[in-house]
Amino acid sequence: MKLYDGGRAPNPRRVRIFCAEKNIPLPDIIPIDLNKGEHKSLDFGALNPALQVPVLVLDDGTPLSETMAICRYLEALYPQPPLFGAGAKDVAIIEMWNRRSELGLYTALQHVFRHSHPGMAELEKPQLPDWAEANRPRAIRQLHILNEQLAQHRFLTGDAFTVADITAGIATDFLKVARIAIPEDCTHLMRWHAELRARPSWSA
Amino acid sequence: MKLYDGGRAPNPRRVRIFCAEKNIPLPDIIPIDLNKGEHKSLDFGALNPALQVPVLVLDDGTPLSETMAICRYLEALYPQPPLFGAGAKDVAIIEMWNRRSELGLYTALQHVFRHSHPGMAELEKPQLPDWAEANRPRAIRQLHILNEQLAQHRFLTGDAFTVADITAGIATDFLKVARIAIPEDCTHLMRWHAELRARPSWSA
Repeated sequence: MKLYDGGRAPNPRRVRIFCAEKNIPLPDIIPIDLNKGEHKSLDFGALNPALQVPVLVLDDGTPLSETMAICRYLEALYPQPPLFGAGAKDVAIIEMWNRRSELGLYTALQHVFRHSHPGMAELEKPQLPDWAEANRPRAIRQLHILNEQLAQHRFLTGDAFTVADITAGIATDFLKVARIAIPEDCTHLMRWHAELRARPSWSA
Repeated sequence: MKLYDGGRAPNPRRVRIFCAEKNIPLPDIIPIDLNKGEHKSLDFGALNPALQVPVLVLDDGTPLSETMAICRYLEALYPQPPLFGAGAKDVAIIEMWNRRSELGLYTALQHVFRHSHPGMAELEKPQLPDWAEANRPRAIRQLHILNEQLAQHRFLTGDAFTVADITAGIATDFLKVARIAIPEDCTHLMRWHAELRARPSWSA
């Protein structure tokens, strides 16, 4: 397998952390330089029309994109430990928190970043500061939702680390890029985020 | 189980179509009137802090939100036919197209609708017409991506109807609400959409 990778960008990191947590050997890495726009070339578009990294090319040549699709494929090949859960309820709760972390928090932060950061002015057209500002309170609200959940559990869905922690943790890392601080009263979120950052997988 | 339902809204429809395709008896329905804002009440927030329908309340009282989490729960209880696929590659390809349909097409259409439709002016604040316009070409590009895929397959991922067809089909239905026509050259998309609408499940 070959992994078209994008370095420190959030989605490629999710795949590499996922592999590290499961002790999966990383596929052959093909680095894609996002700053040079290598993901926007015609050749890359043939792999993924969404022009996004990561893309995992399977041994039969099939290009697989979408971070969660890649992680589910790896989970099926290497089931242990089950980062997507085991059993109907566990699987569903993990999916719920994974989606809240991705569609609620991470997406809002992406909008804040892309529509307010001076470095994105040439890439995000039109850059709409009003849209960034509309998403800022949504992101902060999501942080409080995560914090309440983490007041009750070591990890996002209970005692076990799952893919939902990867997604929420990567989103929390992204606060810095979006120039948003963790609210001071989100102490449980801070405790959990520090614990994630101390995991060996987090530097993958 | 109890399903807090939202009538003709896209995500509640996805759950009901999913149940119909699997011949699952519908859970007890608790209708939520979105026009009256019943999903924004404190009581509803206790079920789902994202204030969105649908929510499935499990027999042990656990509230499960996020459409795909609900569908995955039902898939685990009633595995046949497997709408999320069977086998590592099949599961991953379906997840990829489900996400492209949801995060690519449907999300773009939601932005067009919420930020351009006069009926949303009081609900979506701030309503940003420039953001609607930025998403219109993205949505149309996604329609062409789906069309190319459907030129090669009866359904989105092959010969079998899957959850990706539900998501993409519901998004295609939503074009009318977003006031976007299927591009004339997307004949494969039109053929597939007509086939979906003729399925008994589509009126669920």
